[in-house]
Amino acid sequence: MSSLEAEIDPTLPVTQRSQIKRLPQRGEYDRATIHQILDEGLVCHVGFAVDAQPFVIPTAYGRVGDRLYIHGSPASRMLRTLKESVEVCVTVTLLDGLVLARSAFHHSMNYRSVVVFGAATIVQDAAEKLAALKAFTEHVVPGSWSTVRLPTPQEVAGTLVLSLPLTEASAKIRTGAPVDDEADYALPIWAGELPLRLVASAPVPDPRLSPEIEPPPYVQHYTRNFQQGG
Amino acid sequence: MSSLEAEIDPTLPVTQRSQIKRLPQRGEYDRATIHQILDEGLVCHVGFAVDAQPFVIPTAYGRVGDRLYIHGSPASRMLRTLKESVEVCVTVTLLDGLVLARSAFHHSMNYRSVVVFGAATIVQDAAEKLAALKAFTEHVVPGSWSTVRLPTPQEVAGTLVLSLPLTEASAKIRTGAPVDDEADYALPIWAGELPLRLVASAPVPDPRLSPEIEPPPYVQHYTRNFQQGG
Repeated sequence: MSSLEAEIDPTLPVTQRSQIKRLPQRGEYDRATIHQILDEGLVCHVGFAVDAQPFVIPTAYGRVGDRLYIHGSPASRMLRTLKESVEVCVTVTLLDGLVLARSAFHHSMNYRSVVVFGAATIVQDAAEKLAALKAFTEHVVPGSWSTVRLPTPQEVAGTLVLSLPLTEASAKIRTGAPVDDEADYALPIWAGELPLRLVASAPVPDPRLSPEIEPPPYVQHYTRNFQQGG
Repeated sequence: MSSLEAEIDPTLPVTQRSQIKRLPQRGEYDRATIHQILDEGLVCHVGFAVDAQPFVIPTAYGRVGDRLYIHGSPASRMLRTLKESVEVCVTVTLLDGLVLARSAFHHSMNYRSVVVFGAATIVQDAAEKLAALKAFTEHVVPGSWSTVRLPTPQEVAGTLVLSLPLTEASAKIRTGAPVDDEADYALPIWAGELPLRLVASAPVPDPRLSPEIEPPPYVQHYTRNFQQGG
């Protein structure tokens, strides 16, 4: 946690829409927990409504402190809608494992998810916009920003960046073994957790890449399982 | 493709809301493609609006033919809302890899996603409900339904199952190498794809499991990467 964050309340306020209603014991409103889940995820699902019609669009994102950034072409339907400051719901889900019970009814999944509510605003300030673009790149491939060709002023101008405050959000987490009906524990059926993780395969060089250019360490040793330390 | 599906149009109609607006060359409306993505995914993100406030909730799902099923407790906010036949948007996203360009601006991701639009209805028919519960289980852990303790009539009655027709849906797919600006191909920067896949670690037995019960083959050889055949 940065020194800036240490000065503010570590717990987010619980609101009507961010409150975990179903299985509230799985809810968390702790900033550090919420930030950790957002930092490990790669794709968020952005929900917005146009005339009561909901849309859910997957997209990349980045985080800087208490702000979540999404970006894209000014021509995209999603960004054109969101820049009008409509209410948005952004969800990030990490699937950690399958929970196999003795009964079909008690099958479950272990996961960590974050749901963020708020209204997005357009980032106009050039310095904040560049910081957001750096956050996108470093979020997906940590260590790469100092190696790649950085955005030109034209590229920065041609990208729409939206900012969403991380002030109304909640996390929901399930971990551990299945919970079976007491009578079912005697059944001779395997039960437990099957952990799942996102792993990188061998990098595939661009067909036009000179063969003498080796993948850098941030590609060769890419990992996403921050929690499991691997 | 089953014989039932072979009799119907292999391509879904393109509607105002299901049409891929941004990068339309990445859009697909082919039933088989849409079904394959849905079958490989494990979690969908369900979007709905309550008084113009969007919610995006991750949940498990199953597919039977041209129907997507979601389920849960009758007490959940999501299911209580959806059973009123409100418009819903269900999105499934498979992240296949990171696309690392020579420039930060052209970084991208390889993915396959499906977006489904429609209104969900409650499954009342007991046989359809049981078929949906089987589909949930077999979708997550193929081969397990014949081994686990099946739902009792009380469990079936206590589960709310919602059905969404797969008649208005689109897929969006990106594959392959980065696309850099022509001048950037000469830069001495590694570029290519870093494939990502969801893999299972060693199963973790329930602490209350008898040590002589071995994990069945559907647990020991679990895989989710249907496309890559591994």
